[in-house]
Amino acid sequence: MTIFTRPILEINLQNLLANYKLLSKLAPKSISAAVVKDDAYGLGAKKVAEFLYREGGCRSFFVAHGVEGAIVRSVAPEAEIYVLQGMGEDSLKDFQKCRLTPVISCPQQLEFWKKHRLDGIRPVIHIETGLNRLGFRENELAALSAEDKNEFSYVMSHLACADEQGHFMNARQLENFRRLTAKYFPGLPASLSASDGVFLGTEFQFDMVRLGAAMYGINTAPYRENRMQSLITVTAPVLQVEDLPEGEFVGYSATYRANSRRRIAIVSIGYGDGLPRSLSNVGKVFFKNGKTRFEARIIGRISMDNVICDITGIPDVCPGDWAFLLDENYTLDDMGRDAGTIAYEVVSRLGKNPRFDRRYK
Amino acid sequence: MTIFTRPILEINLQNLLANYKLLSKLAPKSISAAVVKDDAYGLGAKKVAEFLYREGGCRSFFVAHGVEGAIVRSVAPEAEIYVLQGMGEDSLKDFQKCRLTPVISCPQQLEFWKKHRLDGIRPVIHIETGLNRLGFRENELAALSAEDKNEFSYVMSHLACADEQGHFMNARQLENFRRLTAKYFPGLPASLSASDGVFLGTEFQFDMVRLGAAMYGINTAPYRENRMQSLITVTAPVLQVEDLPEGEFVGYSATYRANSRRRIAIVSIGYGDGLPRSLSNVGKVFFKNGKTRFEARIIGRISMDNVICDITGIPDVCPGDWAFLLDENYTLDDMGRDAGTIAYEVVSRLGKNPRFDRRYK
Repeated sequence: MTIFTRPILEINLQNLLANYKLLSKLAPKSISAAVVKDDAYGLGAKKVAEFLYREGGCRSFFVAHGVEGAIVRSVAPEAEIYVLQGMGEDSLKDFQKCRLTPVISCPQQLEFWKKHRLDGIRPVIHIETGLNRLGFRENELAALSAEDKNEFSYVMSHLACADEQGHFMNARQLENFRRLTAKYFPGLPASLSASDGVFLGTEFQFDMVRLGAAMYGINTAPYRENRMQSLITVTAPVLQVEDLPEGEFVGYSATYRANSRRRIAIVSIGYGDGLPRSLSNVGKVFFKNGKTRFEARIIGRISMDNVICDITGIPDVCPGDWAFLLDENYTLDDMGRDAGTIAYEVVSRLGKNPRFDRRYK
Repeated sequence: MTIFTRPILEINLQNLLANYKLLSKLAPKSISAAVVKDDAYGLGAKKVAEFLYREGGCRSFFVAHGVEGAIVRSVAPEAEIYVLQGMGEDSLKDFQKCRLTPVISCPQQLEFWKKHRLDGIRPVIHIETGLNRLGFRENELAALSAEDKNEFSYVMSHLACADEQGHFMNARQLENFRRLTAKYFPGLPASLSASDGVFLGTEFQFDMVRLGAAMYGINTAPYRENRMQSLITVTAPVLQVEDLPEGEFVGYSATYRANSRRRIAIVSIGYGDGLPRSLSNVGKVFFKNGKTRFEARIIGRISMDNVICDITGIPDVCPGDWAFLLDENYTLDDMGRDAGTIAYEVVSRLGKNPRFDRRYK
């Protein structure tokens, strides 16, 4: 027996690549762009983009911010790097230095572009089709001059409900996108779908698909079993194992009371590491003994650095053992569901924890 | 008018220092240790520790992990640096190189210590008094030899309900702490309270208090008005402003429907930046026009990079304007409450966003 204290995040880049290839196969006529914004959903934009560029032949990347584009450029010298939030005073230098392509979502961004055009770059125009987030509204499209419309290399939009097959919004947005592109940008290459839209069928795929969540293993088509492979494993060491007498309380604000004698393990990971605090008294932690997998419930409030698990009946758990917070059997989707949120938020948080011993496979 | 795209996090170190000094005054007979674990609750352990060491004369720091202690050591050469999760195989090098002091919470950690003692370092023993998290239970204390008990420089415990004045657990833990320290460690310096315990009165303060949350501006005594100063301001640029026709839906899964004509602003910050997604359709965003402060409601689901606000009736909001997500009027405590969690989790997340333009004041 020895002692460990630090949680581990393992990221399987081979599974990332397999997911990227499977998604590309599902949209064979479209360019497969990789969405690596938010530090590749927390998994490390530099590593992820470099791997997809080198091993996957990916030559189109989407980020949210110029500062993110600069990181991707350092590992993807020949790629198109599209920046979804557009170009601003505060990101102009990154755009210039790193040859980034802005996505332009409103007339004011277009004005800014016309004052600061970048040599050899033709921006993307984002048009609104039903999400009511970023994008030109039709009255703004109607006001564009012929010259304005010639600025662009791509027209894109984004789906609101693509993870729900049969949602009325999918057909509505598809129709809006077809109508608006035909009217204002006939012949211009088009992109409508992120990875959830890919599963809705070929008519949603157009010239480029933007692969994000599903590539990271998230089930973006939850109306059926996940076809993606899980990428990440989170483990944390057991620091201490104790008996918990009946009547004792556990954790901050004493939200758990032992109504019978229990056995508990204190595990070295908490919300400071990105574990959602909403898993308090709800979430699950797993222990492995040989080939057997045991499920333990999180009891009491999750604290910044620790989580307490009820391991009653699980044999032989000791300090120095490892608890599994996420693996191929308890995935980001499972944790998102249990935490009352979505897998995207879970991975975005966990991935940003500097205390992890982070390992790429 | 110009365009900005990147959110800004401003951290006021003067207010941090003022909070540290006020808390020290409230516990005049105790050493004021600064808790800078979890990257100083996300606010940057290096900057925070360096400032407190240089300007506040702080010579005692608490971190959770060895890897965090190494960062603090680089800016606090003469300080005591206590590591709450203890020392393990995976942190031994940091302990040796950076002269860190482990907190030892169970017999197995003590065994590990006895195999790897560090010259000139005397560890802290953590004893359990009611939180049922880390710490020696009484049967384990009773089993310690006289030699074992001589290993330590401090005895500590941690309160479960110190943010609730009059909670039965406070008196129970105080009594347990007094009894156990008198019985097993008479004369050894003692530490029971974090910043919430400081407000419970002098009998909770002992020889050292561990100042964390309150120092960062969080109200750890929510039964009365906050006496701490707010440290952080989060602002994000408006990317786009639009009319939203009646009947339109907003955001993913169409969870918001406009039941009258509204005006909306799309603001460049999302859960990828650490904004809790649970603020969807609930949270607030503020706009300033001269000296007037306007409150806007978050509508629809918060997405990874954007939040949509209902700005109906707020005059003159344009792309390039700034939205206030957190400031001295809408604090971490307010956001924690609205998000269904606590300020600690909010700041720990926001602080880890690498997309922020981060400014120290």
